[in-house]
Amino acid sequence: MRNEFVEPGERLDNLERGGLRIIQDPRSFCFSLDAVLLAHFAAVQNYDRVMDLCTGSGVVPLLLSTRAKGLKQVGVEICAAAAERAQRSMCLNGLAESIEVVTGDVRQVRQLFPSRRFNLVTVNPPYLPLGQGETSEKEARSMARHEVTLTLAEVVRASAYLLPTGGRLAMVHRACRLADILTGLRENRLEPKRLRFVHTKVKAPASLVLVEAIRDAKPHLTVGVPIYIHHEDGTYTAELQELYAGGELR
Amino acid sequence: MRNEFVEPGERLDNLERGGLRIIQDPRSFCFSLDAVLLAHFAAVQNYDRVMDLCTGSGVVPLLLSTRAKGLKQVGVEICAAAAERAQRSMCLNGLAESIEVVTGDVRQVRQLFPSRRFNLVTVNPPYLPLGQGETSEKEARSMARHEVTLTLAEVVRASAYLLPTGGRLAMVHRACRLADILTGLRENRLEPKRLRFVHTKVKAPASLVLVEAIRDAKPHLTVGVPIYIHHEDGTYTAELQELYAGGELR
Repeated sequence: MRNEFVEPGERLDNLERGGLRIIQDPRSFCFSLDAVLLAHFAAVQNYDRVMDLCTGSGVVPLLLSTRAKGLKQVGVEICAAAAERAQRSMCLNGLAESIEVVTGDVRQVRQLFPSRRFNLVTVNPPYLPLGQGETSEKEARSMARHEVTLTLAEVVRASAYLLPTGGRLAMVHRACRLADILTGLRENRLEPKRLRFVHTKVKAPASLVLVEAIRDAKPHLTVGVPIYIHHEDGTYTAELQELYAGGELR
Repeated sequence: MRNEFVEPGERLDNLERGGLRIIQDPRSFCFSLDAVLLAHFAAVQNYDRVMDLCTGSGVVPLLLSTRAKGLKQVGVEICAAAAERAQRSMCLNGLAESIEVVTGDVRQVRQLFPSRRFNLVTVNPPYLPLGQGETSEKEARSMARHEVTLTLAEVVRASAYLLPTGGRLAMVHRACRLADILTGLRENRLEPKRLRFVHTKVKAPASLVLVEAIRDAKPHLTVGVPIYIHHEDGTYTAELQELYAGGELR
């Protein structure tokens, strides 16, 4: 597919939602189901000011723009090439007015943005502690997958800085990090309020967890119904088929 | 059903497992599915020394005795009448040699038992913070259901005292307390290693969580497949039917 916004080597994918399309570079890191689940898990409200940390291709703000009206969104991405590509995706979709993409380091969030000015922070951060998982030869992939440039603790601290009392954080992460996640949130006055676990198959342990935390809220956690990705035969569950066909997360 | 061990007003229930029977007083607190799930979730090994905190009717040590051989178990119960009744259940089943029931306050565990001498601690503690939930008129029920005499933090501290490095804690609690549970465990060097959530129905949020923590272990949490109690029509799921018919938790 050719397009004035798309450069050689890049591809243009249809998000199957509101006619949205997204530019990706298959040589770099492409967005995954994790980001799609996050965008549909997040409790977004009309006219929210939204910050997407580690925005990558910008898929989360693009999908969020279909779920509420009047959003003002910012995406931060450390990789300049990815940020520039995400910015072109916003232009391509006519969303450059409502979604700004900033090249920047989440660890420097205090230098980049004022505190407590966002209602919602979304983040699909690097998952693996350094030294775990297969190391990708390509630096962009490695940065997106490993805690090379950003640890879980740094993600949580940045989120707490950006949110006022009552502000919401929505994060997707590996289920095996749950204890780190919940203790880190508590330490930063982000109270865990809602979880959903994601299982690749019905009989498999959870691979991912979707977490909603609210700044300065009272303790009471709801663990929602599990999300199953595949049937035992490898086909998508009805829930995932609906989601990919433009539906909402059940 | 009459029996020399059973006193007026009490009843004798069949545990459907190894011919075990248990004495209960329906005027007081009777064991629930929660304790049965706990006893089958706990990773018990042959010849373990096991401590069951808040043992009540003694149902957890009774069930554990069918899952491994050579166990030496102690149950602690603050209510003297319940402890005496549990002791009679052990005699009735010929298990008084291997299961000791002690009347005592879990908060006084340091005065009652030496430290680090148990391989496994099981606990189905009072669930509700004071002031939450309907208050029972009957004191025994109230003590078993509310944190009148024992808070979650006290349960975790007592467990950490009883377990050496590598010792296991298995606890059942309300899913809504998960953040309190995981942060409390971490603070006491009990690393959360395995969770299973219990949903009363397929489409309901989790009501309970089963938690295994290991003293001084490395962080890595497995969130196992969910346990569903009822179908939408209210009948027991196959998994629960199997469990009640003498099978193991899947």
